[in-house]
Amino acid sequence: MTTEIRHNGVNAAAIGSFSQYLQESAPTDGTTFRAAVHWQGGFRNEIRVRDLAPTYADEPEVLGGTNTAANPVEQILGALGSCLAIGYTAGALARGIRIEDLRIDLAGNIDLPVFFGLKAGHAGFDRIDAKVYLQSDASAEAVTALHDDVFRTSPVGNTLERPASLHVELIRQ
Amino acid sequence: MTTEIRHNGVNAAAIGSFSQYLQESAPTDGTTFRAAVHWQGGFRNEIRVRDLAPTYADEPEVLGGTNTAANPVEQILGALGSCLAIGYTAGALARGIRIEDLRIDLAGNIDLPVFFGLKAGHAGFDRIDAKVYLQSDASAEAVTALHDDVFRTSPVGNTLERPASLHVELIRQ
Repeated sequence: MTTEIRHNGVNAAAIGSFSQYLQESAPTDGTTFRAAVHWQGGFRNEIRVRDLAPTYADEPEVLGGTNTAANPVEQILGALGSCLAIGYTAGALARGIRIEDLRIDLAGNIDLPVFFGLKAGHAGFDRIDAKVYLQSDASAEAVTALHDDVFRTSPVGNTLERPASLHVELIRQ
Repeated sequence: MTTEIRHNGVNAAAIGSFSQYLQESAPTDGTTFRAAVHWQGGFRNEIRVRDLAPTYADEPEVLGGTNTAANPVEQILGALGSCLAIGYTAGALARGIRIEDLRIDLAGNIDLPVFFGLKAGHAGFDRIDAKVYLQSDASAEAVTALHDDVFRTSPVGNTLERPASLHVELIRQ
């Protein structure tokens, strides 16, 4: 861990403390993250996480929504991109790499007729393509090693690359 | 398709038109969705989708961030919840079910030491639990059939339940 407190804008001291906590007493069954969604009418939904300001999901008008927010599959792409960006930033901190700029473009295809119930199949992303535009004066070797680490340890990347089991319980009110 | 223009707040006419378009001329390789992420320093990232207002991702202070927005794994949970909610709303429209209220709570565990590089393993969600609180006067049978349809055709649900291939290309600037 670097002795510099902030590098690439990251609070290194906080990460060092939390890393030490994890080494000493990480919960064996993992750390729980949560979100709460509340339907707002139509396809607009409010998303609440901890005590943060709410965010929203909606659909474009062509898909029957009111186009006030990104739709859920677009939010998956945004979550993957920001997870990778956080991974690059954290990994750069650990390796002493200075990031000048970082942009990630993401795209994936959805078979909408499946979602619309017009045919059987898989309505999700089979494949996602990301282009990472990284500006840094680090060596090619250092950046390649950083990239490999990010890809291997990305929580959202790992979630998407492997099957997760979903347990959805319906409770009538 | 109902002849009612709005039901549960959904623009049924728009969905009907788009469904007809999909039946007649759906792209065989799917419809592309996109997001663009721009690093803001530290763990804060701006997410842009189409011409919508930007949204953000960050990490809590204990994880080295500035706690200005949900983190990427929390955003995955929010995307799944809103995708399920949109599925219920769309399915209720098709089935003539009136939704009075709909809330979805989601939770999943992340093995943070893997993300921190402290041990090998899988840093993503292995399992996600969702509780769907649905208020409606529809019959139990109708609601159960709706629920089964939603789960089978959810784009985000399908993405999470099956392995997606991620292609991440690094471009030095």
